[in-house]
Amino acid sequence: MGSLLAELHDAVGADGVLTDADVTAAYRRDMMPLAPYGQPLAVVLPASAEQVRAVVRACARHRTPIVPRGAGSGLSGAANAVDGCVVLATVRMNAILEVDPDNRLAVVEPGVVNLDLRGAVEKHGLFYPPDPSSYDWCTIGGNLSTNAGGLCCVKYGVTTDSVLGLDVVLADGELLRTGRRTVKGVAGYDLTRLFVGSEGTLGVITRATLALRPLPQAPATLVAAFDGTAAAGAAVSRVVAEGVVPSLMEIMDRTSIRAVERFLKTDLGADGALLLCQSDAGGEAARRELAAIGQACESAGAVLVYATDDLGEGRDLLAARRAVLPALEVYGAWLTDDVCVPRTRIADLIAGCERIGDEVGLRVAVVGHAGDGNMHPTIVYDPSSEDEFVRARRAFDEILGLGLALGGTVTGEHGVGKVKREWLAREIGPVGLRVHREIKRALDPGNLFNPGSMFEL
Amino acid sequence: MGSLLAELHDAVGADGVLTDADVTAAYRRDMMPLAPYGQPLAVVLPASAEQVRAVVRACARHRTPIVPRGAGSGLSGAANAVDGCVVLATVRMNAILEVDPDNRLAVVEPGVVNLDLRGAVEKHGLFYPPDPSSYDWCTIGGNLSTNAGGLCCVKYGVTTDSVLGLDVVLADGELLRTGRRTVKGVAGYDLTRLFVGSEGTLGVITRATLALRPLPQAPATLVAAFDGTAAAGAAVSRVVAEGVVPSLMEIMDRTSIRAVERFLKTDLGADGALLLCQSDAGGEAARRELAAIGQACESAGAVLVYATDDLGEGRDLLAARRAVLPALEVYGAWLTDDVCVPRTRIADLIAGCERIGDEVGLRVAVVGHAGDGNMHPTIVYDPSSEDEFVRARRAFDEILGLGLALGGTVTGEHGVGKVKREWLAREIGPVGLRVHREIKRALDPGNLFNPGSMFEL
Repeated sequence: MGSLLAELHDAVGADGVLTDADVTAAYRRDMMPLAPYGQPLAVVLPASAEQVRAVVRACARHRTPIVPRGAGSGLSGAANAVDGCVVLATVRMNAILEVDPDNRLAVVEPGVVNLDLRGAVEKHGLFYPPDPSSYDWCTIGGNLSTNAGGLCCVKYGVTTDSVLGLDVVLADGELLRTGRRTVKGVAGYDLTRLFVGSEGTLGVITRATLALRPLPQAPATLVAAFDGTAAAGAAVSRVVAEGVVPSLMEIMDRTSIRAVERFLKTDLGADGALLLCQSDAGGEAARRELAAIGQACESAGAVLVYATDDLGEGRDLLAARRAVLPALEVYGAWLTDDVCVPRTRIADLIAGCERIGDEVGLRVAVVGHAGDGNMHPTIVYDPSSEDEFVRARRAFDEILGLGLALGGTVTGEHGVGKVKREWLAREIGPVGLRVHREIKRALDPGNLFNPGSMFEL
Repeated sequence: MGSLLAELHDAVGADGVLTDADVTAAYRRDMMPLAPYGQPLAVVLPASAEQVRAVVRACARHRTPIVPRGAGSGLSGAANAVDGCVVLATVRMNAILEVDPDNRLAVVEPGVVNLDLRGAVEKHGLFYPPDPSSYDWCTIGGNLSTNAGGLCCVKYGVTTDSVLGLDVVLADGELLRTGRRTVKGVAGYDLTRLFVGSEGTLGVITRATLALRPLPQAPATLVAAFDGTAAAGAAVSRVVAEGVVPSLMEIMDRTSIRAVERFLKTDLGADGALLLCQSDAGGEAARRELAAIGQACESAGAVLVYATDDLGEGRDLLAARRAVLPALEVYGAWLTDDVCVPRTRIADLIAGCERIGDEVGLRVAVVGHAGDGNMHPTIVYDPSSEDEFVRARRAFDEILGLGLALGGTVTGEHGVGKVKREWLAREIGPVGLRVHREIKRALDPGNLFNPGSMFEL
């Protein structure tokens, strides 16, 4: 047995192995400031499933952990290096292997950027729904590993709802094929969905067969302003109860509104909360959906409701929502939660976040996917102040506790990674944790893949 | 340690333990004539999760296998008894515990009949989509264990797409809670979907939280007649490619049409194939969808296209589809496959089934869910003839091979059970089978649950 680095060179070629600390620094962590990260032995950039298999076999022989990684846009530390590990980044495996419009599916390698896939299938009149906010640079492999969401989820679900099958390299280097190319199929356990969202702890995804949808109609947009979050929360509940399914339904709380108004130098016309909704049903159907949403908002106490099917105007209205994070950056660094609560508890969550912000003495802005209850309370802190960082961390944790107390989950779309392990344990309890460990041990007995992420073995 | 029967009495009460062979006979098998079945030691009818836990603990102590069972409507032998086992039927656990219209979910016990749940949520303007053809007597627990489908799937997916969380009693009697009550959530592995479709091999489902949808509009119906299956298959491909998603899209081949015409004493106006489609989009939107489907059918060569939004007329048109099995029973017993193929290969599948029918000298009628490629080739044979039974079994297997050869799966919605184990192995290959065994061993090391179903450990 030679040295691991020599074997990695053999596996992926010299230009596929990075060891210079200046270069590997860019691969040490993702976008979550709270998660720990270590110093990798090397970063490898395999170009094929065969190369991934060779890397996995070499690391297994040397008992060196592998941390799989996409673009590093994650917000849980799941892709963060541990000391002495090999970071396996799939960015070179970025081919769209097939788009089959007649069966509405695509076959892709994991390094394909979400936006590139969207563009490629749009040419065929097709739609790949999952749209995490990093869609212009995150990769499908990362989306699969974290089961990424986005703005589309209220109508189109999360990543797992668009996956038909996977190729996965297992801990002994064998290649597992899961799923199928057909719309339906119940042959055996649903291994596809076991690997989706497993955050690189069970294997390395080297190929995915994805289900596509017909391209929806251009969206019509509605904005509703409320004096307080209770009324906005009630409006969401009414929309849900009345059976309307918008293609987008976002909420901004008072703190978000104020930050954006100052940032964009505009008046959003709302003191307490703003709802932004879209329908992609097209024409008369879209107008009917937005009318029903408008009525629900008015009867819940909206002070202003405005709808338009002008695309440019719709984009301008949505710009306020998209400006929240840049607007908050004016005040400092941000730290975002992604708790998901039952849709009836959104107002309670926002009120609780306001209270937590007051307690820790930091700005907490809540923005989120109201249509599915997945909220992003975002804590603003001064990154140069250790004290503020500690308070931000406290607020981050208290919001997770609040989400659980409201009947929700600690993570709606970002994942557990290295930052919410204790919270995963709290949410799923000892039996749930035991089952996680049993599955991990069964598939990865040497704890080769992403050790210490999600849970300690 | 007393006798197992005494412990089962303690666990569920004397009236919850059936041992009389005349009584237990009704619990020995499901509706699949090809699958083997044995003689159970007892049938137990627990009334609560606690009773299930006690039964599981007792059986584990005595190393006596447990075969979980719903209503027994399955078509794979997954619920079939093995000799000396305890059949655990969940029919007494039939409470609808909660319907929450504001969060669009229901919490139910496994013994609830699918139709009862549909009715209960409809009162709230809500819809539970999965509609296996046995919906008026099958139970939610069985639907979950087999990941049941139905006519709705082309638009609304299969059972797993409607499940938010489960309670499951594990092999050591511990109660596992999976999932959540929120729409989104990525905390940990997707254990919910690992248990859905696991056919009772990993645990006993004792409770489910189900996602509901708004009640759709009353359906408008379209029927299209074709001279041959190639044209009908081309029509399906065109509908898919054009991005129309009907709420139902069924196909009948020539043999089905002839049997139904004779049975219903009617003329269906089609020599080669019939497509039946519905749209539940309502009003103008439904008319537009059906017009697009009609146009796709005509340009693919339909000899007749007829659409109606009259409910009664729509029901009458669908009656032909529903009459296929009764119509075939006139000629003998039937055996149905459920291969699912890419939607572009439906015509090839039908042509292949015709060829297989000729080869074995038996009538093979193909009817199925054209919109998702899930076909039910149905073989008719004389149950009193051992020779015909052998030929029927041969046709059954050859159709599975054909489905695989066309890029499909051996089971789109019925499951593997005790009748397709060899075919599962062939479809998923040695690595897939190994992973199945690793997961089974991890969660059920004593092989307590449904041993020998799906795969041999």
